[in-house]
Order: sequence, then structure tokens, then C-alpha cells
Amino acid sequence: MSATNEEERLIRVALSLMAEPGDPKLCELAAELGPEQLYRRLADPATDEPRAVDVATRLSTSDPGRALEQAQRRGIRFVMPGDTEWPSGVEDLAHAGVLSDRGGVPLGLWARGPVPLHELGVSAAVVGARSATSYGTTSAARIAADLARAGAAVVSGAAFGIDEAGHRGALSVGGITVAVLACGVDRVYPAAHRQLLNHLADHGAVISEAAPGWAPMRVRFLARNRIIAALARGTLVVEAATRSGALNTARWATQLNRPTMAVPGSVTSASSEGCHRLIRDGGACLVTGADDVLELISDSGRLPPQPEPEPSRPRDRLSLRERQVLDAVPAARTARAESIARTAGIGLSEVVHLLGRLQEQGFVDGLDGRWCLSRWARRVP
Amino acid sequence: MSATNEEERLIRVALSLMAEPGDPKLCELAAELGPEQLYRRLADPATDEPRAVDVATRLSTSDPGRALEQAQRRGIRFVMPGDTEWPSGVEDLAHAGVLSDRGGVPLGLWARGPVPLHELGVSAAVVGARSATSYGTTSAARIAADLARAGAAVVSGAAFGIDEAGHRGALSVGGITVAVLACGVDRVYPAAHRQLLNHLADHGAVISEAAPGWAPMRVRFLARNRIIAALARGTLVVEAATRSGALNTARWATQLNRPTMAVPGSVTSASSEGCHRLIRDGGACLVTGADDVLELISDSGRLPPQPEPEPSRPRDRLSLRERQVLDAVPAARTARAESIARTAGIGLSEVVHLLGRLQEQGFVDGLDGRWCLSRWARRVP
Repeated sequence: MSATNEEERLIRVALSLMAEPGDPKLCELAAELGPEQLYRRLADPATDEPRAVDVATRLSTSDPGRALEQAQRRGIRFVMPGDTEWPSGVEDLAHAGVLSDRGGVPLGLWARGPVPLHELGVSAAVVGARSATSYGTTSAARIAADLARAGAAVVSGAAFGIDEAGHRGALSVGGITVAVLACGVDRVYPAAHRQLLNHLADHGAVISEAAPGWAPMRVRFLARNRIIAALARGTLVVEAATRSGALNTARWATQLNRPTMAVPGSVTSASSEGCHRLIRDGGACLVTGADDVLELISDSGRLPPQPEPEPSRPRDRLSLRERQVLDAVPAARTARAESIARTAGIGLSEVVHLLGRLQEQGFVDGLDGRWCLSRWARRVP
Repeated sequence: MSATNEEERLIRVALSLMAEPGDPKLCELAAELGPEQLYRRLADPATDEPRAVDVATRLSTSDPGRALEQAQRRGIRFVMPGDTEWPSGVEDLAHAGVLSDRGGVPLGLWARGPVPLHELGVSAAVVGARSATSYGTTSAARIAADLARAGAAVVSGAAFGIDEAGHRGALSVGGITVAVLACGVDRVYPAAHRQLLNHLADHGAVISEAAPGWAPMRVRFLARNRIIAALARGTLVVEAATRSGALNTARWATQLNRPTMAVPGSVTSASSEGCHRLIRDGGACLVTGADDVLELISDSGRLPPQPEPEPSRPRDRLSLRERQVLDAVPAARTARAESIARTAGIGLSEVVHLLGRLQEQGFVDGLDGRWCLSRWARRVP
């Protein structure tokens, strides 16, 4: 017997109240069994599920209905699969594997703010170092403003540095910007960003996989990064040292097969090292502005433009004599070697030899002693 | 009857005195006919070679023996294929095509300075904008010094900006550095670089494809760039605006299938735009220092990591029916449509239609009602 939508919501809230965000095993079980079966299995003390004993205790003391009601009174909603507002992009996490022991489709997302999560449209994650340079924050703000001006939503965390600059850039032009937190959406972290977070809750969206009240913890940042990457069409790293958490978000974007981008900077700046490494190792496309980002994340340019292959001119590889013979081979009909030799002004035996070489290389086709340009040769320069 | 080595030298000098550096047609004829035949053909007023009339006049007034002797008195040698000193890398220009109407293996190289051209070993071209920023010149000097310290030779032009900084960086640690000029090696261009060029002629090498006395002209810079790229194991662009000549050198490195590298910089600096574009479009690897360069140009990393081409399987684009027909076309002999239809188990009229489509796409060739796989289709997956 399957739960109704509201029963399922209570079950998902209950699971959200006990499950660590991005616990890959629980996310997988939820996908496999459905939340109701998972809930039953966890709540049954007779189960062999190792987490069950702890969980049963936590479940018996949690009251999902009350939690949901309390959240709603504070302007916080619980968005889950099947809701109109459910952002379909996060479903891709089902196939994006596990990084740092976090992964999977979230059981639901807690959200504040007027922007519906399914209406982010073309959106870019703008992430990077907390200890950014002024070059980094200026670049982040400029690119975010240009993205917002073009109608793209910005997605980021709520940290100092690049995250903050990205939000402020988007807000400066009245754009849509979304903060994804590692703690509950009712909490303020860092404390200095109270005003920024309140502004986002009034004009944009503040989202978390972690239940209201939950504290920001290291593992929750790692889980949070995958939500940022999954909500956005592509992820841009503006500045990152070599061990920056933003690189984890970039890896999620790559796992999700979404465009991963990085802004270059001075080779003497430690804050650009992570970006340079990403670009050098093929983990990100180099971008210098919003135009590059939009090209990569827009519908028309969904996939990153493949590097233009150097125009290969196969004829350039031929010797002069070979080319002389090739030029004498008719395109639209066949000819005997004798006729080609006459046209080329080259002796018959050499022409026969060269025709053989040209055939080897795919330029001509010979059938029953008659020769013509290959289809391929007719098309290549 | 073939010329002795010294006869060939005089012939090559004679050709060098009349040929524009990197004239692709003359380089090709020299490779095809050998310099002696080319010389005879050009010198014979009865030939049908269109250049011959001009050239015969020029040849009759040139005295290669005297030119060589004069050069030698001024410490200038003429290095040519077959000489121990001939740098084998330039031979790759035979297969590197033509850019901006310049190309081909040089007939010879004029050289000053104690460094033998075949002993450059692991070497890197360090090139870039004349109007470089201090970030660019500092980066170029630092990377060149680190390359030289690691035993790698630096190759560049002799312009202000990045070229100069590269030479100075290598010289600052007593490294080997080589200037390739667009004018004769006895000329000083730019004039302010008299001291630098004299220093290079005393401690490194100054090289040109252009004969002594020849003036620097635009087309000679384009020809010169290919020599820089061909002498070095890889080419590094440190700073370049979008229309910088250094990008031409980078393209030569790519044509030569050697590592092409670029240093990133601020996205607000016009002097880095060309570098960023190269990296973004896959035309260069991002490098931040000499270690990255050495990794790419050393023997262990001889070839640049090619951007993995999307495995192109032209057959995947075919419809199921087209593939059925294609599978029924014999590879090693021709067949009539009736026989192909029987093998494919598809009606004749549809087979004839599909064979036409397959021919359009280059998979099959039809001649006189008989069909076979095209050479190309036999080779593609």
C-alpha cells in the first residue's frame, strides 16, 4: 500500500530529521525501496539494518508533523520529489556516484524565499575560496552581475569571499540568487552574513538538505556541495587554492556531466592555483566572463564546445608528384592510368606506382583498371 | 651527377640569396627536386617555371661564393641539411603545412654565435607580446631562468617585451638562449637591442633563414615564426593580445605537433586575452611555471596530451536500415545492388535508395552499377 502525498511528505521529513545529508547508503535505499519501506525498515527494531537501533530511538522521539508545522510557521517549506517545485536537476545525483563518502538524491530540500526551486532556469554555480583576493571577488561579482543581467540565476554557498561576491553581484542588478547551506536554513552561518541571508530569504532562496536547526559541520559542507552543483547547469570556480572546498563542488559538476569552468588569474597568486590546476588537467574550461559561461550552460551550448580540430589538409601530406597525379584524376568519371599519365605529364609506370600510393591513402579508388577520385577526396580540401 | 657537399652549399646559398624565406613553393620544389635541380630549373631561361625569368636575373648577379666568404669573415656560417650542426627539428616543417602562405623546410640557416644548432637539446620557445605588462615580462624572465637552470635552451625572437625578457631570464642564470631573426643575422632590429643581440652572438646563437643584409619585413616575421617553433621542443606564449604574432608561432607549434603552452593572467588584462583564448579553445595547455613546461617538452612527455577527440564513429550516425545495407556491401570486391539486397534481406528498390545515401556520406563507392566499400569506410570504425 503506497503512502499518499502528504503521508510520504511526513515520512520524508521523518527521514530528513534522522539522516545525515548525503548519506549515500540511505539515499540509495530510499531510491531502491522508496521512502516508506525505508522508514519501516529503519523503524523496525527487528530489522538487520545496522543503523536501525540508533535510528529507531531517534524516530520514536521525533515528530515529523510537528517539525513540518513549526518550519512552515517560520516560512520554511519542505520540497520533495513529486512537488511541482522539485528541481529535477538533483535527480541526476542518482547516477553521479559518491565523492568523499557523500552522494545520492536528497530525500527532500528545506527552502526559504520566494523563488521556486524549479524555476531557476539557466543557472550557474559561482563558487570559490573564502580567502579570496580582491581580483577574485571583483571577478565573481562582475561575472555574477553579467549572468543575472542575462537572466541566469546564480547558485552558491554563503561563505565569505567568492560566495558572498557572487550573491552581491547578482543582487546588484536585481537578479535571482540562491544560497545552499550546510546547516539548517533557519541558522546563520557565518554569523556576519545574517543580513545577506535574510535578504536572500526575502528576495531569492535559501536551501538546505539539512533539517532546520541543524548545525554546519564539515561533512555537511561536502554533502552541500553536490546540491550546489546539481541545482546549477554548470559550476564556475572563480578563485580556489589547491585544497579549496570549491574544487569539491567542481568535481561534483564533472560527476554530473555538467560544464565545469574556472577563471584564470596571476600565476603568482595562490588563490588561483586550484583554478589553474583544474584547467590544466582538463577538469574545467577556462572562462573569462559571463559570455563564456552562458555559452557553456545555455541550451544551445549545453555541452562545452570541443576544441576546434586544426583544419587537417590531407593533401598537404602528399608529395608534389603525388599531387600532380591526383590533380589529373577525374572527379566525376573514371579514367585509365594511361589517360591520367597524359594529363599529368608523367610517365605511365610512375603514375601507376603513384596511383597505388594514392589509393593506399584513400584519395582514389581503382576498379578494374579504371580510377576515380574517392568520395572522401572529393570532399576534403 | 650530384653536387659535392660544398657545391651543394654554394647552390643553397645562391638559392637563399634569391628566395624569400619560407616561400612554400620553393621549399617544396627544393625538397622534391633537390637544390641542384631546382637551381638549374630556375636558372634556365627556357624553363616554364613562372618565377624563372626574375630569378635568372637575380641569380646572374649574385655571387654565392663571395657572399659565403664575406659572411664567414663576419663570423656568420651557413648551416644546411647534411651538416652536423643542422637542427633536425626543422625537417618536421616538411609535413607541417602552410600558414599565412609561409611554410616548408628552410634551404639553410644563417647563424652567428658559439652554440651549435644541433645541441639545443630540450628547448622551449618563449614568445609573446611586444607590449607586454610587467606581469608578462616578470613571468617570462622567471620561467626562462628556471628552464635554463634545468638545462633547457630558450628560443625566441628579438623583440621588446616577452622575447627580450625570455632571453634576459635565461642569460641571468648563464643559460643557453637563441634569437631567431626575421632579418639578416648581421642586422640589428630593433635597434635598441644591439647590445642584447651582440651578447647573444657572443654567448648563444643568432639565427635567420634570411640572408645577411636582408631587412626585417612583415612576411619574414611570419616565416621566422615557424623556425622558432621548429627549433624548440615546445612553444610557450607568455602574454599575447588577441592578434599577437606570438599566436602565429603557437599555431606553428601545433602544426608541428609539438606542445603549445600558454601562461594565464588576469581576465581584465588585454595582454592575456590571446593566451586565454588559446587555452579555452584547446590550442594550448595552461602552464604556470617551468616545471609544467619541462613536463610537456621533456623526452618522457614528448607529445602534448592531445585533447581526447570524441570517439567519432561515423557509422553511429547511420540509421539501422542504412547499417544493414552497409554491412552487406563487400569490402574487398564489388557487388551489384541485387546481390547486396539479397545479403541484407531488404527489398531492391530500398537498397538502391539506401546505397545512394551511403554514397552521399562517403561509405560506399558505386561505379557502373557495381558497389564496394569506400577506402575510407574500410578504415573507419
